[in-house]
Amino acid sequence: MRAVVRQPRLRCLDHPRRAPAIAQGNVRWRMTTSWPKSLDTIYGSAAGLCERVSRLTEGRFQIQPFAAGEIVGGLQAFDATASGAVECCHTYSPYYFGKDPAYGFDGGMPFGLNSRQQQSWMLYGDGLKLMRELFSKANLISFPVGNVGVQMGGWFRKEINNVDDLKGVKMRVGGMGGVFMSKLGVIPQQLAAGDIYPALERGTIDAAEFIGPYDDEKLGFVKVAKYYYTPSWWEGSAQITSFVNAAAWERLPSTFKDAFEAAANEQTLSMMAKYDAVNPAALKRLVAVGAQLRVYPRPVLEACYQVTLDTFSEFSNKSADFKRVYESWVKFRDELNQWFRVAEFQMDSFSLSKIHN
Amino acid sequence: MRAVVRQPRLRCLDHPRRAPAIAQGNVRWRMTTSWPKSLDTIYGSAAGLCERVSRLTEGRFQIQPFAAGEIVGGLQAFDATASGAVECCHTYSPYYFGKDPAYGFDGGMPFGLNSRQQQSWMLYGDGLKLMRELFSKANLISFPVGNVGVQMGGWFRKEINNVDDLKGVKMRVGGMGGVFMSKLGVIPQQLAAGDIYPALERGTIDAAEFIGPYDDEKLGFVKVAKYYYTPSWWEGSAQITSFVNAAAWERLPSTFKDAFEAAANEQTLSMMAKYDAVNPAALKRLVAVGAQLRVYPRPVLEACYQVTLDTFSEFSNKSADFKRVYESWVKFRDELNQWFRVAEFQMDSFSLSKIHN
Repeated sequence: MRAVVRQPRLRCLDHPRRAPAIAQGNVRWRMTTSWPKSLDTIYGSAAGLCERVSRLTEGRFQIQPFAAGEIVGGLQAFDATASGAVECCHTYSPYYFGKDPAYGFDGGMPFGLNSRQQQSWMLYGDGLKLMRELFSKANLISFPVGNVGVQMGGWFRKEINNVDDLKGVKMRVGGMGGVFMSKLGVIPQQLAAGDIYPALERGTIDAAEFIGPYDDEKLGFVKVAKYYYTPSWWEGSAQITSFVNAAAWERLPSTFKDAFEAAANEQTLSMMAKYDAVNPAALKRLVAVGAQLRVYPRPVLEACYQVTLDTFSEFSNKSADFKRVYESWVKFRDELNQWFRVAEFQMDSFSLSKIHN
Repeated sequence: MRAVVRQPRLRCLDHPRRAPAIAQGNVRWRMTTSWPKSLDTIYGSAAGLCERVSRLTEGRFQIQPFAAGEIVGGLQAFDATASGAVECCHTYSPYYFGKDPAYGFDGGMPFGLNSRQQQSWMLYGDGLKLMRELFSKANLISFPVGNVGVQMGGWFRKEINNVDDLKGVKMRVGGMGGVFMSKLGVIPQQLAAGDIYPALERGTIDAAEFIGPYDDEKLGFVKVAKYYYTPSWWEGSAQITSFVNAAAWERLPSTFKDAFEAAANEQTLSMMAKYDAVNPAALKRLVAVGAQLRVYPRPVLEACYQVTLDTFSEFSNKSADFKRVYESWVKFRDELNQWFRVAEFQMDSFSLSKIHN
């Protein structure tokens, strides 16, 4: 992600590791995020959380959000919070899968839970409990704060007609997607948001995935790679998470804990609702300027599915943490899918078959 | 709904129309609901909202929830709040479509928005704005507080193989469903929850729809009508709404307004998450004791769709309010469906095709 640097309040930068200021019952926290402010849905959700917490506490608990790069880089949010350099952050757990592949379940796994299913697993399944057990080892408490839904499957300069067409494709992929795609012959590239377009234009990379129509449009990919694939099987829902330093959390009065938790849950609802409101028009605009929508052919998805299962097995063999979470997750997913097949999918299938415009 | 009467706090019943008690900055409200306490997901969500508001305000703003029948009957919640007899309620807007068919859009219309789409229309489309304009005429402010998702399409003693099989079927249908179903020859019956099973057992009615597996199981329908149809095309998502008396709202300090609004949004997330966690196991249990799952045949759904469009036209011709909301709603739905066809549906279609257990 490219950091959009603004002038932070000097007090904060002068004492980046100071203890939180507590005066007359007031608490001030900093929230470092992994986002540039131009990602107004995701960054805006962080700002919305801070604003609601302030209003709920009559200004007694103030959290200031910072864009990536203002305090630390976007991918250092987790460590900065774990160390206590900041009290909290707003990020995406799969960025840190190198620490533990089980972190991937917090953000969403390939062929995993959709956004509604993820929310259920978190709040009424074992999801939040299991993830908090993992993150507690890093002195962190996790709070789901949003979801992006099914992302798009990337911009390509050439069509993908069969699984061999993926071989050798240099593709920018975020999160854990590259781990799985590399087994299909894709050469995954990690690039910050601002570096993707130039790389695609110069031919340094052949393809790129970012988020969905609303965010992708801003980066201009359609000008240099017109085939816009769906779905992002590796990010069938992307949960955004706020981590809070455990010691900072314990110092909070219970009312402030309630304010943070309620505001986080509210943002989980709100981020998805906003994406659903802004993506349709962006998709239309992209198609109007030449984007060619393509669905990954079924045999390609089947191959992706198979490498996903193989990779889950590998991780389970290597990591007891991964195995424990995977077993809970897959049981929850499979049972919930049975119910979704009966009701949601039957209704959606009919409703979405009606083309009105 | 069958009221589960418990002993309310006497102070409340002694002065049912008293002004809210405000002492030393404290506010006490009553929330009448349309639910028996046995509906632990929906009623539990009302209780959860009240609990969170209390915690957010350090007990200064207390709302006490009441089951249907404790203060007024379940279907009098709207009027009791409009008149100021209670400060707020927790109900389902289509119960009141006799006042204005446009109220139906608040709870969900046949072949309408799914739960995620409804949340987007409410928060980032014109949904909440339009509905509040309508409800303001009744001195009410509306807050979405939950969703049930796609309901099941009812319990039948005989299979429905074609649209003629619906003719003459005496069926218990909640909300607005009966308006649409009667045009297919169904004879809709309004029955409270506790009266449905005896009527079905005696043959006074031939079929009944209630909610979904988790709630339906409690009422025992499977013992007397084994064909369990999906989907409930007339309740493809059922939004639960809390109405607040406008004058009571205006008297609230802004912090209490924030607490109510944040808690309501949180419950919208939470209710759907809970239903998704409890419905799968209930569905399995129902099938284990003999429920025969059936999907409404496509020609039946097409006929239902056609009478739905016809009814929307009739309502639009009769009511300027309905027409205005319908035009906004249908535009939002159709554009959002285009996007759902591209991403969500492609992913769900693949994921749900994988049968694991």
